[in-house]
Amino acid sequence: MAVGEALQGPLLPVPGVTIGVACAGIKKPNRRDLVVFQLTEGSSVAGVFTTNAFCAAPVVVAREHLASGEPIRCLVINTGNANAGTGEQGLADARETCARLAALRHLETEQVLPFSTGVIGEYLPMETLANGLPNALATLMADNWSDAAHGIMTTDTRPKGCSRQFEFEGETITVTGIAKGSGMIKPNMATMLGFVATDAPVPQALLQSLLSEANEASFNRITIDSDTSTNDACMLMATGRADVKPVTSAEDPLYRHLLKTVREVMLDLAHALVRDGEGATKFVKVAVEQAASTEEALAVAYTIAHSLLVKTALTASDANWGRILAAVGRSGLKDLDVDAVNIWLDDVQIVENGQRASGYTEAAGAAVCAQEELTIRVSLSRGEVSDRVWTTDLSYEYIRINAEYRT
Amino acid sequence: MAVGEALQGPLLPVPGVTIGVACAGIKKPNRRDLVVFQLTEGSSVAGVFTTNAFCAAPVVVAREHLASGEPIRCLVINTGNANAGTGEQGLADARETCARLAALRHLETEQVLPFSTGVIGEYLPMETLANGLPNALATLMADNWSDAAHGIMTTDTRPKGCSRQFEFEGETITVTGIAKGSGMIKPNMATMLGFVATDAPVPQALLQSLLSEANEASFNRITIDSDTSTNDACMLMATGRADVKPVTSAEDPLYRHLLKTVREVMLDLAHALVRDGEGATKFVKVAVEQAASTEEALAVAYTIAHSLLVKTALTASDANWGRILAAVGRSGLKDLDVDAVNIWLDDVQIVENGQRASGYTEAAGAAVCAQEELTIRVSLSRGEVSDRVWTTDLSYEYIRINAEYRT
Repeated sequence: MAVGEALQGPLLPVPGVTIGVACAGIKKPNRRDLVVFQLTEGSSVAGVFTTNAFCAAPVVVAREHLASGEPIRCLVINTGNANAGTGEQGLADARETCARLAALRHLETEQVLPFSTGVIGEYLPMETLANGLPNALATLMADNWSDAAHGIMTTDTRPKGCSRQFEFEGETITVTGIAKGSGMIKPNMATMLGFVATDAPVPQALLQSLLSEANEASFNRITIDSDTSTNDACMLMATGRADVKPVTSAEDPLYRHLLKTVREVMLDLAHALVRDGEGATKFVKVAVEQAASTEEALAVAYTIAHSLLVKTALTASDANWGRILAAVGRSGLKDLDVDAVNIWLDDVQIVENGQRASGYTEAAGAAVCAQEELTIRVSLSRGEVSDRVWTTDLSYEYIRINAEYRT
Repeated sequence: MAVGEALQGPLLPVPGVTIGVACAGIKKPNRRDLVVFQLTEGSSVAGVFTTNAFCAAPVVVAREHLASGEPIRCLVINTGNANAGTGEQGLADARETCARLAALRHLETEQVLPFSTGVIGEYLPMETLANGLPNALATLMADNWSDAAHGIMTTDTRPKGCSRQFEFEGETITVTGIAKGSGMIKPNMATMLGFVATDAPVPQALLQSLLSEANEASFNRITIDSDTSTNDACMLMATGRADVKPVTSAEDPLYRHLLKTVREVMLDLAHALVRDGEGATKFVKVAVEQAASTEEALAVAYTIAHSLLVKTALTASDANWGRILAAVGRSGLKDLDVDAVNIWLDDVQIVENGQRASGYTEAAGAAVCAQEELTIRVSLSRGEVSDRVWTTDLSYEYIRINAEYRT
């Protein structure tokens, strides 16, 4: 199951980035499960990572290597095994993965960032993984983004990728990204895994602030099951191959253009994760308006998006406004004036001043809920702040996938 | 579906309490849906209510009437309609219900407390309800607790009730209670509806503090789907018919005895709600030890209890310790030392110092998870505080019930 169209259009190469993909047999044979990104000399890399206290070994090591100041030249990603909950052995394995790849490319270990996704709590099969590295490197090509999108999938039913270009001072700048994730999705820094690259020249510190800002408006606004993963990571790579002057500040016009485009690409990827959410049959935007702060807008939005009763009503295409109202009521807002709350499903008002809207008919609500895509919009009449998150319904299929995932 | 044994043993009458039950046809014909409790003169009544900002009209009116100081003599409960999200009309209907019953019993309107449970957002069918009142009153009897337990059910698959007695100064004191609730359960003051009565003599203020304390350890420690209802209410009635000296302070031996017994009855009822949780196939205790505070013990316990990934693993009897670990990691504890975390399934240690326990085998974990009842125990090594909550798994059946409830 998945909602809406799958991957559209080609994924454009980013000058300065080559990608290799192999079937290493980490969990299953004949499945693309090992991906290597290689970056041209002079590239910058920024990253955002999970806030889960039990972050996985590769997250710890990737943070260390990013902080080392060594220029990052390779990223290595495996699926089939998350290398999480694996203690000292897991950290040693993540470092060993980097060291093996570094040796093959004549780099320092710190110039490689490791990423893993899959089952928690099992040690990486190191020899299997290491044996796959030469095969992945043998396929290094600029045109491998689509293969890479396949190579990082786990329970995903389809690959996720997005490309955008913009013109700047006569030069075409490209932004291409891929992502994976379908369950255990309530990113709190980034999604399960996202990799975005551009050929724009951006120094590391500015690239990091650009990524953080784009991430806040994209991956940090989606939830499938409210389970923040141990392995979330989103990386932004800038190769500097485009023939324009490097970004020097956040006020730089190129920075603003690039931020807008990266945010678009990341929002597209974030939406693709939700559309492919485990068992998803609906793609739902929850928008909260007239809140007193971003914090309270998000409290209401996430309470609705996480409510099992709202999610199961959506599965049944049931315009059950009482469940939405109850979710608003328990979202923890201080001194909420319930008589000032209004709620719409798309353009159909279902709640007016805290009760059933006067002109509302079940038929009108049911028509909106029958759609594959809809917006739940809540107005709180408490202030000027709006925010929104995206989520899915909760279907039998979600239970099947997650009850069977390890068995 | 439901876990464990249904209602056991007789529900003992409480001197001073009579109960009437009728089939009023509020939502469906020939179904017990209207219950009246009548209390002898001199009784005290205490209540705890939902914290949902959208509390239902009967909750507002019950609070008003309790606060009025008029001695409460009747409670009237209907199922089939929650009278929530119904605005001014709903408040008028709740008051009218009390007035109609008061007129029949020669009471003041304020001496009656109203309760409703069922679908949100529809107006009460007032004439149908009012026509049922004489029929309910015609059956007033001390021995009607079991009928009443049936009469307050909605999606419950079985009635919930519990009786306990204790001896005090040569007198037998009785505590009997009933409750209903199966979904939209994460009480934050009380469960959907609970009614507990005793013949011990306890003035209202002390009865309220006793109820609050017992409630905190029982209904406030369960969750099925984390959706706090709009109609939660739990009432404790004390008729004073037992021939012992009235309680005069919280240090009074009778207060301590009664608190212990009321807490036992309410915990039994709370467990019965979880066992009958929508689609429940497991009854799961989540115990957190060595926390720095009750707040953080509960944060960890509820994060585990609400995790869809943990709940679906339980459905599959899958000892998926990685999902439990990930839930602990995202529960928001500051400076959590992940290497000091230990987790057990019953007596089988699954996580030792933040990773898979050394002696752990999948077979041992699977054997515990195959049980209908189990305990997930987490030790944080941060302090001396323990607490625990009870919950269920998340099955296909939950989805079916909630996707079909209104259709």
